[in-house]
Amino acid sequence: MDTTENAGAMGSGAGDRFAAACRHARRASVLASVEALLGWDEQTMLPPAGGPHRADQAAEMAAVVHRLRTDPAQGERLAWLADSPLATDGSPTEVGTIRLLKADFDKQARVPTRLVEALARATVEAQQAWVEARASSSWSLLLPHLERVFSLKREQAACQRPDLDPYDALLDDYEPGARWREVIQRFGPLRDAVVPLVKACGESRRRPDDSLLTDADFPVDAQKAFVREVASRIGFDFERGRLDTTEHPFCSTLGPDDCRITTRWNGRSLPTALFGVLHEAGHGLYEQGLNREWYGLPPGEATSLGIHESQSRLWENLVGRSTAFWEWCHPLAAAAFPASLRGVPMSRVHEALLVVRPSFIRVEADEVTYNLHVMLRFDLERAVVLGELPVAGLPEAWNDRFERDFGMRPPDDAHGVLQDIHWSAGLVGYFPTYTLGNMFAAQLMAAIERAMPGLDREIAKGRFTDLLAWLRRQVHAHGRLLESDALVAAATGESVSSSWLVSSLRNRYGAAYGL
Amino acid sequence: MDTTENAGAMGSGAGDRFAAACRHARRASVLASVEALLGWDEQTMLPPAGGPHRADQAAEMAAVVHRLRTDPAQGERLAWLADSPLATDGSPTEVGTIRLLKADFDKQARVPTRLVEALARATVEAQQAWVEARASSSWSLLLPHLERVFSLKREQAACQRPDLDPYDALLDDYEPGARWREVIQRFGPLRDAVVPLVKACGESRRRPDDSLLTDADFPVDAQKAFVREVASRIGFDFERGRLDTTEHPFCSTLGPDDCRITTRWNGRSLPTALFGVLHEAGHGLYEQGLNREWYGLPPGEATSLGIHESQSRLWENLVGRSTAFWEWCHPLAAAAFPASLRGVPMSRVHEALLVVRPSFIRVEADEVTYNLHVMLRFDLERAVVLGELPVAGLPEAWNDRFERDFGMRPPDDAHGVLQDIHWSAGLVGYFPTYTLGNMFAAQLMAAIERAMPGLDREIAKGRFTDLLAWLRRQVHAHGRLLESDALVAAATGESVSSSWLVSSLRNRYGAAYGL
Repeated sequence: MDTTENAGAMGSGAGDRFAAACRHARRASVLASVEALLGWDEQTMLPPAGGPHRADQAAEMAAVVHRLRTDPAQGERLAWLADSPLATDGSPTEVGTIRLLKADFDKQARVPTRLVEALARATVEAQQAWVEARASSSWSLLLPHLERVFSLKREQAACQRPDLDPYDALLDDYEPGARWREVIQRFGPLRDAVVPLVKACGESRRRPDDSLLTDADFPVDAQKAFVREVASRIGFDFERGRLDTTEHPFCSTLGPDDCRITTRWNGRSLPTALFGVLHEAGHGLYEQGLNREWYGLPPGEATSLGIHESQSRLWENLVGRSTAFWEWCHPLAAAAFPASLRGVPMSRVHEALLVVRPSFIRVEADEVTYNLHVMLRFDLERAVVLGELPVAGLPEAWNDRFERDFGMRPPDDAHGVLQDIHWSAGLVGYFPTYTLGNMFAAQLMAAIERAMPGLDREIAKGRFTDLLAWLRRQVHAHGRLLESDALVAAATGESVSSSWLVSSLRNRYGAAYGL
Repeated sequence: MDTTENAGAMGSGAGDRFAAACRHARRASVLASVEALLGWDEQTMLPPAGGPHRADQAAEMAAVVHRLRTDPAQGERLAWLADSPLATDGSPTEVGTIRLLKADFDKQARVPTRLVEALARATVEAQQAWVEARASSSWSLLLPHLERVFSLKREQAACQRPDLDPYDALLDDYEPGARWREVIQRFGPLRDAVVPLVKACGESRRRPDDSLLTDADFPVDAQKAFVREVASRIGFDFERGRLDTTEHPFCSTLGPDDCRITTRWNGRSLPTALFGVLHEAGHGLYEQGLNREWYGLPPGEATSLGIHESQSRLWENLVGRSTAFWEWCHPLAAAAFPASLRGVPMSRVHEALLVVRPSFIRVEADEVTYNLHVMLRFDLERAVVLGELPVAGLPEAWNDRFERDFGMRPPDDAHGVLQDIHWSAGLVGYFPTYTLGNMFAAQLMAAIERAMPGLDREIAKGRFTDLLAWLRRQVHAHGRLLESDALVAAATGESVSSSWLVSSLRNRYGAAYGL
């Protein structure tokens, strides 16, 4: 990065101070990327007995990073810069960097190191308990851990953003600028559209059959080669990343040239790994598209989880389930899986990808019901954080709400409240970003289609460079300098709304179900 | 650990200070184990473009660990404890812990953080350059990196142990208490025995044929199951460890219950992976046998690389190439590799494991010539550190010496000075510990055979628990409280000598070659 753009002209050492502040923040980011390696390794490589020591390592590293991020010398530098002409008259990058580094610092400096260490340890321990609790569907194994995590999260909320109510203080970590009352207003129309859409699909006499993709022979070795080819083709750079196997797929960035995605494999089902990898590679494309020169600093960081999710969902659902994509992909798939797909027409494969079917598990949910899973979690976690629901009341509240929304009750907690790792990992206020991401993706895709009328023809030939270039320019290039709403508005020319997602779901699934 | 054994009775807060010093040292060890993860991941998982950021991470972590290890508050605690009655009248564990923590602190405090960071960065960069240099046999690619590393190592030597000459200051990092003049005296008789032994083997009309093991069909998948079974059987605990694939096999400990070994695979050669894994699992058994309660503190740490190597070589060569071992292992191997081994008599397999054949590459060397490879490196690196040989002169000096010792000249630097990663990794003073380990292993094994006359019968049944229990008790349990010479002397009742290794090589290879 060139940290002396305008700073030099501002006199009084503004340039030096700005460079020093950036160096300091970048060091903290480098150490945070070591923390990320601990997490990736825990999910993919850690021997069974290695858990307790990993918790020690995570707690120590969290403390190291926190101390660096809240170093008083950095606070003084940032306070000086925030009062300097550079904070208002610098380049947009300088102005934004100073504003965000200062806000980050102030927020983190209000959280005591003791709490950061306690959270790191409690969440590693809770995640380890969660693995066991979910495997045996034993809520009581997880309960004390989850009570501790929620209690620490409330403490964190009160420390870091005393100006916000506790849930907004946590939500703001993942979706800067978002407030829950506004999120509820956005989700309302979506819920009003999705509930009847699910019902109509369920009652339609035309029902896509997905068994040719989910109950047939897809040898795992062939899948591995196939999905790697697809991920490379859409632009994921394996020189700067890798693909591994985990029970829960994720994307983790360990450095500017080290982005790691994971998936799981099912020898009878192609969509499990294929859409898992399209999703995680979508996250990876965002990370690989960030400005390397500003790695670890606001101009080179992802702006929010909602925008992150918009990138993964756009590739997974809006590209990956499109007719154009399958015009390119179908011959490839038929060659890779001849026993199951040779001679099957493309149209049958494509319609098998547009099934709506209520189910208990979020990560297996179809694109339409998915948002109902998210809203349930958003409402429950908010109730816990705002003190309206005790942690111990979660299983019953979950099952009641699930029955209302989906018309069926989870048979056990493994199919209910125990299914997600998020709360055990301390990710509270995170769930709503999934549906925000779906909204952003639909709105971005509508703008892309307006801007690029020939896109379908490109995709049908397996050419994704124009689409990726648009995302690089309109989304990735901004880093954190634009918050999600502003970014989507700038990219699409429209203010954020769930109406695009509603139309997208109605159009595509309405057609598949003959509604 | 119970850090209050006698400390409580010493009054004046000795117990509290001892516990605080242990806590502090253990925190540094936990963070050092995060550094170890960076190294393991770099060798096994890092995407091709991830190197430069890994160097940043390694440098930052090295600085974090160094700052913690040289924290003046810890220095004051240790100085106080060293002057307290606990340092002389405490339990042996307390006395030893105080002595070693104090010596470690003093040594590290003399090295500036700037130098630690520079070394971390220079060695990561040199290792990355080495990969390319070796692949293209281009010494000039590595030379500037190696000059920088040797220069920094000389600086480190001068800082950390001003009381020792530069080479001893580095050797002492790996083999505490060892001095090069004494090592030369030990190596002399070994060299005097090995050179004629190699010659005699080469001239013998009886020559074991190893092609049935090194040029036959050993499918890699079958090898993976086979060597895992063997490693488990000798006692390596896969709940507390794992086995991965790397070009250069190694063993890395990332925590008290996280010991990772690696190997490489050759579908035509069984010994490559089998003896690689026996070797690394031998290291792993030592690590897994250390006192978990004292993890990260001297009573729970390996005492030296020589002792470490004695454990790996004992399992690899003295167990793994024995008749008794193959009485157990042969039926297993014949079942795993029927195409190559079914119907082949055990005696033929066993004699194929005792081949002496001069070759260019140390890691492929047989047990006898191996020590000549080590002595060559020991003499050359010492000459560089002591200023008697410029780094630029290494290739020629290497080739000249190699020709003298082995009767053949390396065809290129990839088969000569570029073959090992050690110097690039900053491991200067490390090589002699390989042959010290061979000496210790032979001396320990002689004592074991005296103490356990029925050992061969046990091993022939695949029972290794008595042998492992002896090693746990006589070697692993001491941690760093005994230095290598004292440990070997206590375990064997004899002072350290290379005569045991000489006899062991002469007896076993003499028999194989009919000398």
